[in-house]
Amino acid sequence: MPFSNEGDRVGHDEIKTSRMGMSEDDFRNAANEMSEYIISYYKSLNGRQAIPSVTPGFLTDLLPKDPPNRPENWEKIFVDLEKVVMKGMTHWQSSNFFAYFPTGTSYPSILADMLSNAVSSVDLSWASSPISTEMEATVLGWLGQAIGLPDCFIHSKVGPGYGVIQGSASEATLMTLLAARSKTLSLLSNKYPEKSQYELLSKLVAYSSKYSHSSVERACLMGMVQLHKLPVDENISVTKKILEEAIKIDMENGKIPFYVCATLGTTSCVSFDDVSGIGEVCAENDIWLHVDAAYAGCSFVCQEFRHHMKGIEMASSFNCSPHKWLMVNTDCSVLWVKNNKDLLEAFKMQPEYARHPEDDITIDHRHMRVAFGCRFRSLKLWFVFRLIGVDGLKQKIRDDVKMAKLFETYVKKDKRFEVVFPVHLSLVCIRLAVSEDSKVNKGINVELLKRINQAKEIYLVPSEVEDVYFLRISVGTVACDENAIKNCWNVIQKHADLIFRNSLENGSM
Amino acid sequence: MPFSNEGDRVGHDEIKTSRMGMSEDDFRNAANEMSEYIISYYKSLNGRQAIPSVTPGFLTDLLPKDPPNRPENWEKIFVDLEKVVMKGMTHWQSSNFFAYFPTGTSYPSILADMLSNAVSSVDLSWASSPISTEMEATVLGWLGQAIGLPDCFIHSKVGPGYGVIQGSASEATLMTLLAARSKTLSLLSNKYPEKSQYELLSKLVAYSSKYSHSSVERACLMGMVQLHKLPVDENISVTKKILEEAIKIDMENGKIPFYVCATLGTTSCVSFDDVSGIGEVCAENDIWLHVDAAYAGCSFVCQEFRHHMKGIEMASSFNCSPHKWLMVNTDCSVLWVKNNKDLLEAFKMQPEYARHPEDDITIDHRHMRVAFGCRFRSLKLWFVFRLIGVDGLKQKIRDDVKMAKLFETYVKKDKRFEVVFPVHLSLVCIRLAVSEDSKVNKGINVELLKRINQAKEIYLVPSEVEDVYFLRISVGTVACDENAIKNCWNVIQKHADLIFRNSLENGSM
Repeated sequence: MPFSNEGDRVGHDEIKTSRMGMSEDDFRNAANEMSEYIISYYKSLNGRQAIPSVTPGFLTDLLPKDPPNRPENWEKIFVDLEKVVMKGMTHWQSSNFFAYFPTGTSYPSILADMLSNAVSSVDLSWASSPISTEMEATVLGWLGQAIGLPDCFIHSKVGPGYGVIQGSASEATLMTLLAARSKTLSLLSNKYPEKSQYELLSKLVAYSSKYSHSSVERACLMGMVQLHKLPVDENISVTKKILEEAIKIDMENGKIPFYVCATLGTTSCVSFDDVSGIGEVCAENDIWLHVDAAYAGCSFVCQEFRHHMKGIEMASSFNCSPHKWLMVNTDCSVLWVKNNKDLLEAFKMQPEYARHPEDDITIDHRHMRVAFGCRFRSLKLWFVFRLIGVDGLKQKIRDDVKMAKLFETYVKKDKRFEVVFPVHLSLVCIRLAVSEDSKVNKGINVELLKRINQAKEIYLVPSEVEDVYFLRISVGTVACDENAIKNCWNVIQKHADLIFRNSLENGSM
Repeated sequence: MPFSNEGDRVGHDEIKTSRMGMSEDDFRNAANEMSEYIISYYKSLNGRQAIPSVTPGFLTDLLPKDPPNRPENWEKIFVDLEKVVMKGMTHWQSSNFFAYFPTGTSYPSILADMLSNAVSSVDLSWASSPISTEMEATVLGWLGQAIGLPDCFIHSKVGPGYGVIQGSASEATLMTLLAARSKTLSLLSNKYPEKSQYELLSKLVAYSSKYSHSSVERACLMGMVQLHKLPVDENISVTKKILEEAIKIDMENGKIPFYVCATLGTTSCVSFDDVSGIGEVCAENDIWLHVDAAYAGCSFVCQEFRHHMKGIEMASSFNCSPHKWLMVNTDCSVLWVKNNKDLLEAFKMQPEYARHPEDDITIDHRHMRVAFGCRFRSLKLWFVFRLIGVDGLKQKIRDDVKMAKLFETYVKKDKRFEVVFPVHLSLVCIRLAVSEDSKVNKGINVELLKRINQAKEIYLVPSEVEDVYFLRISVGTVACDENAIKNCWNVIQKHADLIFRNSLENGSM
């Protein structure tokens, strides 16, 4: 065995192929083919059918039930990208995709993840990957500034504010709800030492709009706290008054309000709760205010949209997901807390194998999320900031909002349709308005949506707010442009025409 | 505006550079440079210093506090990969890295994630990305078979068994604990309709070894259930008898046992709880048995290690993380449940915008994890299976175990050292054994570890089990080979020699 005895062995032996699963040359060739495939994939997105023509179980016929024992060669897998993978793909970046909310990607983000995967470091403490921890702290400082967050959230400005990457906005909501519960129970236990944790828990009540994301209700179920779903005003907003009234009634019934989740940009219709008013109530009552701005928070890179977060300095925590609308791939949802101790100390565990000499002077991110270890997730944010710049991100947001406004102008010209809510950002909510009866209206819009999605020319999802059922047109895919917007509207009009023609023929209208 | 009126517009217009953050040509060039960088990175890992020479806060001097407004060019970022990123990197795949547990990567996995990022689909329901949901179901069937899981867990064999990808083993533990809590409370509420959920909750008790992963205790804190930490036998195992005794005492005190987390391959010392015996107790008492085999479960691709999971058919759920030891990048931790309804129904939410025509006949994975939406995570498992094959994964595991055994033979030849626990897989636990007094022993081993990690020739982390403090040598990085094993031992011996020489000179030994 050719082995030298010095302690500091530095060599350049080849890593065995078996330990990387492919030879260097095969990887070089495959990576090259994959890059070209990705480039041609993006070229194919203009006009590409967004929803695949498959039914549940389609893959059973395409893949064997048993795993392969022997390795296959790259060319066989490469051929299957079209035959198998793309066959069942919903193309989230197609020019015909207007469903859900946008999801982020960009060439810089893809490049960063290549490196993140290659180094495959695990961030479980500062020591386990110093660059991962410190880059996260730095770029979340950048992001906080870019979206105009007040200094109280930004680590480099004013401790103890801090930002940390979560896997999803749902995780951010869950972590803040549980941290708020811990903090509250600890305070209450001191105040009422004779009461058990469980008795105190039974009194806790959280609040959010009836139109907040389903993950808020789910977090409450997981945290075993009651959720008081709040009604909204005519702007589909929770206001100071609405919250005050709910709290008053609950307190009269012996409940203890401890957490409010306000939403900036609801999934249903991009409405905005009144954070400023809600914040005052929370401050008065010592309630944790979490602000979920997963989608809309991204738009705050543009000054003109920041008025939506007026009063944000009163929040205890704030969430914005760059993986939605800031050209960064999933998963990259950012949670800022005003006092990092609230999150750090809530569920802190210090097993011997995770300790390190610097753990008293560093912030180990594992305490602030569900996962013990995670990948190097801040690298893609760094690449995006440097290769695109804040100006580039602003342009992306403004282009999308402009296209949504363009779509709105089309709709407004057609008297059969109604734009149901103001177009604040890149979502346009529309419906056929044919009757005063909301059931009749719902019927025809359900039918319209069904026809549109079955035809698979474009892809939309519906929502329902205050008994109004409508179609959501969410703008922002990579391949979206003014032609795509016009086409989307043409498709919708075409199906509306068909419905109206059928109705006339049947004499039902 | 050159716009044609047909509904089915199919074109090949260029996607605007601004919408992908770089031009096609720039991406082609950068992806090529990145692939070459990754290849040369792996070549550098043989002998590369595993722990970086940085102190907390090092990045503050290297990066500006404010985000860049204007985009920079690729070459500037590329230069910073060495100057900034690698400066603070802990090299988890270096031949000198023996800390924590291995973490997975491979060329096939990196290639898959390139595509996953490019399509940037979001799996929030079957309809949102059919290929993502169905490929996950298929490849987790493959993985289940590859590691010899009984058919009762495998969807394609016997429903209602099912597997789903989680972000981490911690998330798998949390989800199963909360699901078990829901199920139990629901049963108890029927049985004791006069009692509140909170009173019932106060009676619940979960069990795990005192050496189970810290995420179990953390999940209990989050779920607000008591954890009874169990003692272990001489094999550092929880046995049937130990569990029975604990349950008996708790039940006599009015507690309600509802969840046991058994560990196969503890982080501290890779010991194995007696799943077979524990399973019997759980079956008798109607307790959810979760088996955490995050690391060791990967080894079950080899028949010769499967005896460790004897009795696994009695478990309610099972976790194994391919992102640890099966050449797949984070995040890919797999949770199987024997009855998918237990997990599906626990926290199910059906907002209008996530419904789809097929939701009655498909399994939407969002119900089974924390995140509402997630990336296309099964693709990398598919690439790894096809390009490496089950045989290739077996070889990887066997090579690592063989290297650990080789290391053990070195240690056994040096009378100053002790191999503290049997080497079941790829972890070797060693210590200097100089005294009958555990405190004296700990002192010298703390000193040894400190010297080793400060010298930065190799990187180790310690653990402590039953008052025995020891050094963990975890084998399995990409660059690890027999030379690296020999070098690791030489470094440890060298520092032990120095300690002994100092002690002799000081007359303390």
